Amino acid sequence: MELIYLNTVWIVIAAAMVLFMEGGFSLLEAGFVRTKNAVNVTMKIFVDLTVGVLAFWLVGFGIMYGQDAFGLIGTTLFGSPEKIALSIELPSAAYVLFQIGFAVACISIVSGAVAERMNFKAYVLTAALICLIIYPLSGHWIWNSDGWLAQLGMKDFAGSATIHAVGGFIAFAMAKLLGPRNGRFNSDGSANVFAPSNIPLASAGAFILWFGWFAFNAGSTLDASNTSLASIALNTMLAGASGGTAALFMTLKKFGKADPSMTINGVLAGLVAITAGCAFVSHLSAIVIGAIGGLIVIFATLLVDQLKVDDPVGAVAVHGFTGVFGTIAVGLFDTSEGLFMTGNASLLLIQVLGAAVVVVWGLVGGTIVAKVCEKTVGFRASEREEEEGLDMSYHGIPAYNELERFTDLPSNLYDFEETTGITVAPDDTKENAG
Amino acid sequence: MELIYLNTVWIVIAAAMVLFMEGGFSLLEAGFVRTKNAVNVTMKIFVDLTVGVLAFWLVGFGIMYGQDAFGLIGTTLFGSPEKIALSIELPSAAYVLFQIGFAVACISIVSGAVAERMNFKAYVLTAALICLIIYPLSGHWIWNSDGWLAQLGMKDFAGSATIHAVGGFIAFAMAKLLGPRNGRFNSDGSANVFAPSNIPLASAGAFILWFGWFAFNAGSTLDASNTSLASIALNTMLAGASGGTAALFMTLKKFGKADPSMTINGVLAGLVAITAGCAFVSHLSAIVIGAIGGLIVIFATLLVDQLKVDDPVGAVAVHGFTGVFGTIAVGLFDTSEGLFMTGNASLLLIQVLGAAVVVVWGLVGGTIVAKVCEKTVGFRASEREEEEGLDMSYHGIPAYNELERFTDLPSNLYDFEETTGITVAPDDTKENAG
Amino acid sequence: MELIYLNTVWIVIAAAMVLFMEGGFSLLEAGFVRTKNAVNVTMKIFVDLTVGVLAFWLVGFGIMYGQDAFGLIGTTLFGSPEKIALSIELPSAAYVLFQIGFAVACISIVSGAVAERMNFKAYVLTAALICLIIYPLSGHWIWNSDGWLAQLGMKDFAGSATIHAVGGFIAFAMAKLLGPRNGRFNSDGSANVFAPSNIPLASAGAFILWFGWFAFNAGSTLDASNTSLASIALNTMLAGASGGTAALFMTLKKFGKADPSMTINGVLAGLVAITAGCAFVSHLSAIVIGAIGGLIVIFATLLVDQLKVDDPVGAVAVHGFTGVFGTIAVGLFDTSEGLFMTGNASLLLIQVLGAAVVVVWGLVGGTIVAKVCEKTVGFRASEREEEEGLDMSYHGIPAYNELERFTDLPSNLYDFEETTGITVAPDDTKENAG
Repeated sequence: MELIYLNTVWIVIAAAMVLFMEGGFSLLEAGFVRTKNAVNVTMKIFVDLTVGVLAFWLVGFGIMYGQDAFGLIGTTLFGSPEKIALSIELPSAAYVLFQIGFAVACISIVSGAVAERMNFKAYVLTAALICLIIYPLSGHWIWNSDGWLAQLGMKDFAGSATIHAVGGFIAFAMAKLLGPRNGRFNSDGSANVFAPSNIPLASAGAFILWFGWFAFNAGSTLDASNTSLASIALNTMLAGASGGTAALFMTLKKFGKADPSMTINGVLAGLVAITAGCAFVSHLSAIVIGAIGGLIVIFATLLVDQLKVDDPVGAVAVHGFTGVFGTIAVGLFDTSEGLFMTGNASLLLIQVLGAAVVVVWGLVGGTIVAKVCEKTVGFRASEREEEEGLDMSYHGIPAYNELERFTDLPSNLYDFEETTGITVAPDDTKENAG
Repeated sequence: MELIYLNTVWIVIAAAMVLFMEGGFSLLEAGFVRTKNAVNVTMKIFVDLTVGVLAFWLVGFGIMYGQDAFGLIGTTLFGSPEKIALSIELPSAAYVLFQIGFAVACISIVSGAVAERMNFKAYVLTAALICLIIYPLSGHWIWNSDGWLAQLGMKDFAGSATIHAVGGFIAFAMAKLLGPRNGRFNSDGSANVFAPSNIPLASAGAFILWFGWFAFNAGSTLDASNTSLASIALNTMLAGASGGTAALFMTLKKFGKADPSMTINGVLAGLVAITAGCAFVSHLSAIVIGAIGGLIVIFATLLVDQLKVDDPVGAVAVHGFTGVFGTIAVGLFDTSEGLFMTGNASLLLIQVLGAAVVVVWGLVGGTIVAKVCEKTVGFRASEREEEEGLDMSYHGIPAYNELERFTDLPSNLYDFEETTGITVAPDDTKENAG
Repeated sequence: MELIYLNTVWIVIAAAMVLFMEGGFSLLEAGFVRTKNAVNVTMKIFVDLTVGVLAFWLVGFGIMYGQDAFGLIGTTLFGSPEKIALSIELPSAAYVLFQIGFAVACISIVSGAVAERMNFKAYVLTAALICLIIYPLSGHWIWNSDGWLAQLGMKDFAGSATIHAVGGFIAFAMAKLLGPRNGRFNSDGSANVFAPSNIPLASAGAFILWFGWFAFNAGSTLDASNTSLASIALNTMLAGASGGTAALFMTLKKFGKADPSMTINGVLAGLVAITAGCAFVSHLSAIVIGAIGGLIVIFATLLVDQLKVDDPVGAVAVHGFTGVFGTIAVGLFDTSEGLFMTGNASLLLIQVLGAAVVVVWGLVGGTIVAKVCEKTVGFRASEREEEEGLDMSYHGIPAYNELERFTDLPSNLYDFEETTGITVAPDDTKENAG
């Protein structure tokens, strides 16, 4: 039997699991935001999986993995990513599918930070721009073997930098430029915390994300004969566990209560932190890296608040700050090149450089996207839309509809016969059979 | 290593993913219907996975894959589907499990269209009848290699016709005969749209369905050495994305709002549309097919309304109409036999014939089931049951129980000692320890 | 291609699916308990996946699979489970990850039975103790090839005894010692049933559990060349289906309503019952075993009530009583050694002995854990905490937060600058861009 058969099955399943993480993002965000914006965050995830996917398939993939120009940008494969010539035993379609999962993860990170006050059309544009160019460009530098950071020897196994830190700092710039939700900060500089609307739903999202993360990291082998595959999956488990443990005990100690949002974000931070190094570090190192990630997320959340940047779900802390840490951690804990293991700091310097580059690019890219939105469809929701809630404003329906009300979108609002030219005879038969 | 080992792992995982789609149906329907019927739709999915599974395993599988008689019906394997002799390298138990997943998908399609006003016992009978005979019979024609449509050369890779169109038109007939929910249509012929009760839950259902669909389509290879496996999965991704994109933009244009129900159903329509052709068409064709599916679902939803058929979740539009389109689309886009690729219409004619046959059989089969229900357990819920909500009427409990009330099913209602003959001594120990 | 590559992929995916079952437990329990305790049960599952995982990885794995002493306990591998020498073609990291999934399943079983009135810190301690020593010790007896029950020939393929019965009777002892929730039993000895708070969520949990169970059972082969793998998965399907069918019809007959909780628990009981024998019995036997499991769960639930033990989610009935039955059923239905198949009762006697041992050990272990909690952090929540709900008492936030309220955990409660020494300059820029 040929290895390519096994690789195909492995990566198709892994890609499905990574794409299922979008369901996790949707539930996590719908649970973390206020009820009146829960439909809107869900719809944004659908935008990622529809508009974002097509944008990445058509253009973004070529920018990222096309023929390199100057170490900076890909120039081929537009509209036909399947034509990529892989040096591994894997059908290109499986590779493309897996990469699509990564691209939409990056944009979904952003979606949470800009929740509850962004113009919906601006989000559609944002998803398109990030998948077309922003994510693939820095992705090219790190993951295209001819990219300039790849050439320097930067190591980012499954994307702490390439996906999480980039997404987190795009999110930071956009959340900053968007301004906070009304009422989020007081005039004396103190912050109000809006309570998450649905903790069981948010938790369900976290469990789905964790499930998918095994594929996110172990699937990045792209090759089932890579014997580190099992070790990667175990590192993913342990880092998530230690991240959650650290955050849980820290909130218990500091607040006197075991805080659900922080515990969830602690788990996710542990997972983000191990993503770059999951294939390069020992199990004990994974536990340490995860635990540090779980602590960083708490401090970073507070820091973001202090900077008066409003991130309703903590995406900047979880993906941005912890993504940077995870990238740098490879330089410290890598079993063959890490400072702590070898006393040699050369990999560490490259990792720090790479992390700095993605932070700067994330901030620049997020600013570009924000400015394009401002100049075209409008960036921020109106006061009235925000007050009413984006669910009713943009989608005409509340998330939870306990009463038996009619929507304000009766289907007959849209004139079927006029549009289609089909005349439907009235139906006078008995309507209540039985 | 032998190929059968990989095939076994692949199909067992794929079957688990397809069966997990039942959870997707449950959440999708529970989110789309009104709160007072959310338990009932969930319980119907449990009926599919319990009564339906046993019915298909005992009888339906033999009808579908047993020794052929006259191209019309299978006549063996009853009560022992594992005795099937497969020409592929796959244990029969894995094949049977995967086929069970398909059968319950067909019945779950029906469950949504008849929601909110059907007698629960009638649904149990419906699930049994569809899995015993209705679905397997047309399934035999198309997927048993000796079936008459198979012999004509009909192509339906993963079931746009065999599962979705059949299910959709059974649903159409049954929803028509059941009559609409009270208050759904006005005397002037206009329709009222009842608002979905829980959009985040419905979305979660859609994400689960999408996840399972990768296995639904790519698993239909039944063989990991089939090199089109990865391409099938990518087509599944792209068609879902373009279906959702088309529906999203259409509702934005027509209604001024990005409608969540339509976007979700647009994604599902894209997935249904590509199901027949996922192994036979190019990636660009998959995008086109998905987009057309996403538009069809909007028009079909309106058409079903115009016909005064009440389908609370849009199952007829998503699975019926788009399933027919997907079946026909193979005749247009198939890379080796499609009209658009070869100029030859012979496959197209067969596909149109096949689609027409499943529509007719779905309508006939649904009518038979409805009539059997009417003559036996009663088809439609009473006025009072429908008004109260099927959750309280049939299951004695509401979906969401915010107050700390007692159910009307106290466990001591059922006399344990009398039934079992076991006497339990009263326990006088302290009840509140700690 | 080498078998170990396929085994690695298979077990990593299976482990991810088993670990995803934690999301199932979370939703199931959050749906079954009262709203005011839904966050707390969710947080307990996070404790399992964080503290529990680290405890098992550090110590428990060594107790279970380390070098045997006297057939009773493992003595090696502490802090380095990956050093285990496996006789199968599988990387030890994959084996460890899969076993972690089993350990957290055991503790998650307990979490449901003690819901709604346990001190949160006591639960953290409980999770640690069960993963450190209680579960691994009996696990050693049965699943370490040198364990005394293994040496006697006890058969428990995927853990009806090792995981479910042990967890179920730990749960029984702890729920008994904890005492019932306030108001659960009346002074005349009759019981009140608190209504589950969210049936669609509980159902979603059940679907996730069923999905994971395919991996739980079939993954226990640990070897993709084991040709019984597909048959195991099919048995898992059929037993769950017949368990649910039996419970559904029984409640319909006895209560006049199809009870959702009992149907869900009937499915789970069918799955628990087949877990020990899934590799050893025929498909027809699987259906019989599942159906008996589905009936046992109803009677066992009533019996637990009669014994005045308060188990909010039915975990004792589902996992404890049905786990015992599943263990014994191997002695009856095993195709090569079962009493019904061979007329020889020797395996049956061993299975009965093994079941009795795990029941006793579960009761003893649960009592030990309860006593340790009582002597240290306190076992039961205070009257006030229970009345208020554990969500607000321990986590400061309700599960569902419909109003736009502020939490009582403002982030500025924790002084960032004082703790970190970092001074953040006040930000006076415009806050509402766009």
